[in-house]
Amino acid sequence: MFERPLSRRAFLRAVGLTGGAGTMFATMGALGLAPAAAATPPFDPPKPADFHLTGRRPGTVIVLGAGIAGLVSAYELGKAGYRVTVLEPRDRAGGRNLTVRGGDELTDLHGFHQRARFTAGQYMNAGPARIAPWMVTLDYCRELGVPVEVFTNGNADAYIYHSSMPAGQPVRYRTAKADTYGYVSELLAKATDQGALDAELTAEDRARLVEFLTDFGDLGEAREYLGSSRRGFTSWPGEAGAPGEMLGDVPAASAVFASGVGRHFSFEFGFDQAMPMFQPVGGMDRLPGALTRAIGPRRIKLGCRATSLIQKGSGVTVTYTDATGCAHAMTADYVIAAMPPHLLTGLVHNLGADVVAALGAIRPFSAGKIGLEYRSRWWETDHRIFGGITETDLDLAHVWHPSHGYLGDRGVLIGYYHYGATADRYSAMSPKDRETSAVTLGERIYGAKYRTELDSSFSVAWREVPHLRAAWHDFAGESAQSPIFKPLAEPTGRVLFAGDWLSNMDAWQHGAIVAARKAVTTLHARALK
Amino acid sequence: MFERPLSRRAFLRAVGLTGGAGTMFATMGALGLAPAAAATPPFDPPKPADFHLTGRRPGTVIVLGAGIAGLVSAYELGKAGYRVTVLEPRDRAGGRNLTVRGGDELTDLHGFHQRARFTAGQYMNAGPARIAPWMVTLDYCRELGVPVEVFTNGNADAYIYHSSMPAGQPVRYRTAKADTYGYVSELLAKATDQGALDAELTAEDRARLVEFLTDFGDLGEAREYLGSSRRGFTSWPGEAGAPGEMLGDVPAASAVFASGVGRHFSFEFGFDQAMPMFQPVGGMDRLPGALTRAIGPRRIKLGCRATSLIQKGSGVTVTYTDATGCAHAMTADYVIAAMPPHLLTGLVHNLGADVVAALGAIRPFSAGKIGLEYRSRWWETDHRIFGGITETDLDLAHVWHPSHGYLGDRGVLIGYYHYGATADRYSAMSPKDRETSAVTLGERIYGAKYRTELDSSFSVAWREVPHLRAAWHDFAGESAQSPIFKPLAEPTGRVLFAGDWLSNMDAWQHGAIVAARKAVTTLHARALK
Repeated sequence: MFERPLSRRAFLRAVGLTGGAGTMFATMGALGLAPAAAATPPFDPPKPADFHLTGRRPGTVIVLGAGIAGLVSAYELGKAGYRVTVLEPRDRAGGRNLTVRGGDELTDLHGFHQRARFTAGQYMNAGPARIAPWMVTLDYCRELGVPVEVFTNGNADAYIYHSSMPAGQPVRYRTAKADTYGYVSELLAKATDQGALDAELTAEDRARLVEFLTDFGDLGEAREYLGSSRRGFTSWPGEAGAPGEMLGDVPAASAVFASGVGRHFSFEFGFDQAMPMFQPVGGMDRLPGALTRAIGPRRIKLGCRATSLIQKGSGVTVTYTDATGCAHAMTADYVIAAMPPHLLTGLVHNLGADVVAALGAIRPFSAGKIGLEYRSRWWETDHRIFGGITETDLDLAHVWHPSHGYLGDRGVLIGYYHYGATADRYSAMSPKDRETSAVTLGERIYGAKYRTELDSSFSVAWREVPHLRAAWHDFAGESAQSPIFKPLAEPTGRVLFAGDWLSNMDAWQHGAIVAARKAVTTLHARALK
Repeated sequence: MFERPLSRRAFLRAVGLTGGAGTMFATMGALGLAPAAAATPPFDPPKPADFHLTGRRPGTVIVLGAGIAGLVSAYELGKAGYRVTVLEPRDRAGGRNLTVRGGDELTDLHGFHQRARFTAGQYMNAGPARIAPWMVTLDYCRELGVPVEVFTNGNADAYIYHSSMPAGQPVRYRTAKADTYGYVSELLAKATDQGALDAELTAEDRARLVEFLTDFGDLGEAREYLGSSRRGFTSWPGEAGAPGEMLGDVPAASAVFASGVGRHFSFEFGFDQAMPMFQPVGGMDRLPGALTRAIGPRRIKLGCRATSLIQKGSGVTVTYTDATGCAHAMTADYVIAAMPPHLLTGLVHNLGADVVAALGAIRPFSAGKIGLEYRSRWWETDHRIFGGITETDLDLAHVWHPSHGYLGDRGVLIGYYHYGATADRYSAMSPKDRETSAVTLGERIYGAKYRTELDSSFSVAWREVPHLRAAWHDFAGESAQSPIFKPLAEPTGRVLFAGDWLSNMDAWQHGAIVAARKAVTTLHARALK
């Protein structure tokens, strides 16, 4: 869902890599061991046939929450014959998987009310918006017949804009990379030639390194970086006699490093963000839509807010209020609590002190997005940017160009996608003020059309969305394996937990799905006993 | 069309960049001058209104060849009211823009006959297959209503396979990049720390450089490369308690450089190949299809091969034979010769010695592709590769995973895309032998399904395709501006020339289009005189 890379240190700890200087020039085996075995965690879905020899029958399950974890839980249990009821307090399924279209309404916890005025066919994915090829999310798209298309994370034509740059003078990724890689290559080639690496590398290794650098940095005869066609052109190569004009003067190495543009490059190397990424055609909510149809819409009770969760030896009783305010009670063999963890503690329950302590350690985190519908796709016609992300150090953080509807008449730009303190600050602003700020800042990067072509906007501050109240949660990576969370990962009597927050891929639908599969597997094993 | 990067030196010459050591640490201006002005060559299309004050009327034009240059010439002239006839010897328009579907037939100049057995909805783009965002090709897609989708050039999950690697052990791009960038960063950080760059960079610059390298290479505390989650996982991060397992042992720097994997990285930095790239939805021939409809199909005479081209003061007479072998003569005010240049010399003509000399200097170049239809998309399900290119040092050169039909039942892989001597060698093989060789080599990379899941194949050896007889031509870049070609770039009486070979983007549809625009502009200016 979100581009918050786990810290490298966190990962090394998480996966138990010991590291240490001794491994650096490891004696190594073959390059790229077992690359084909890019395995997702194994999953053996419950099947009706599993019950044949047990003398048991599939029981009843209440799922709290129709987010991705809840829906996948209900879907997988339903396939095996369990009678499942999903209680969802909001008026739609999907949870944070939220695609906003014209006519959609949102009243947030500050009382700000919005009604989307996007025109027909236009939409924004306000929550999760991309799927990596290895994620199980894509397997559900295949299984459920949800077509996908490329979500462009990395775009050579997208901009980098830092507030130190003059207005209207962002740098394109292709230019920033050409200059940075050019100078890095030149400097390392120079150091190699001067003998600085003689202790590290053999003469043969050094020769190969320099050969690589010459190509990687597009170095000249004397192994100097002199600029490159990779930077782009002010006039592209044309017909005979019109060779084009390469972009501007090449800045000095010092200016390139001082600009800090290079800090954005590693994003695309991330195991979770490397290109290509994917999105369902027509909106991310095609996935919860397909899950809902597969589960059976009548099994999902919208507008139903759980108020208590009490388990006894023989079952679990959930009380809830429906959309009209009437109170109900329902008892089932099992409950899968697929709610936001920090809202679970608001229920009356008898889950015990360990569960309360674990839930209490999980903190909600803020993020916000604004969708800006424009009357023209000026970023395509004038800037030749088709999809991809412009990175800024402004409040906007990330600006996303739409990865669909190319060459069309209109489009919805994600005008900001920011987190933490910035998101909290914007959440307190009225939607109109958020729009004003987004447009004022965006205009600095893109120029006048950022204001003049705007048609309407819609913004979501996730911390303030009723019944969700977070963009994601704050414990994964570093401490997902901490013993404090053990009471959540294991069943508490007949209550099981599921959610991206209970995975190593917090803030991703993949995390919600693998956590749901775990809960389903555990429940089923117990039901077969 | 093709990933034959112009040599850097050629480019520096072509664009008149003087280079030299003095520019290296240039005093520079702002980073990224004028990035928004990514201009395509200006084009003012002929309009009917242009004739209002001249007392003249749009004349008649014969276009030789219904490739992209010919079609765009006819389209632009037609919009202004010219009466255009296109003569095309093949049985379809598009030229090298060739999408092969089930039922399509090809008999090549060796006499090899093929009938494509691709199933419904499956196809291969045998010629051009990708469009860069800046190319005018995309403007024609917009103008003509041809929807486009991303063509994935770069894919972190695609493989690099060199014959030095054991069978079945290719390296994924993500792994190769993580290791290469990791060691490059470590070595340069080390050299910097040891003072090797003290003469080159200030202390502040050095600090910024090391900060960049630490992030770029994912270096550890001691600025060593110890591996990274960027390499990929043998088991991806899952639910709580299943943190995943990072990929294999990290090879030593020496092994990484010796492997040569890094030589493939710069492809994606190319001004013509950087991601994202695009393709028309449904096949590249959607573009000539749309052009044909806009021109009016009756204006395009298929099966008509020009045999002579004689100009007099008042017009040009073209003789041609039609599909039944009957000879015809047609006279027009102008001719645009948009044929392959090396076949133009086969016509009886009075174009003069300079033209003959210029045409004679342009040599055909070979390339070939094979489409392999599989009964399953095993590269997606088993290898998690969705689109993108696997690079090899085998005869295959490039293997393309389809950038459309994701998650579907079937797909057509481009099993090889090779050029030059390899292409010539394969062109002499029977289509069955080409398939056998492609499958045997592909199996080394991907394993058994490369053979067992194969349904059918279709291969095109461009040097042997009647009436085209080349994949592209051999003079652009280094010498496109050479005086020898001047007689082709300027009108020869009433005959003008157009084609990608008459541009600075040889082998790309962009080149064909800008050359056509130039011819149209020149013709129109003359007609208005």
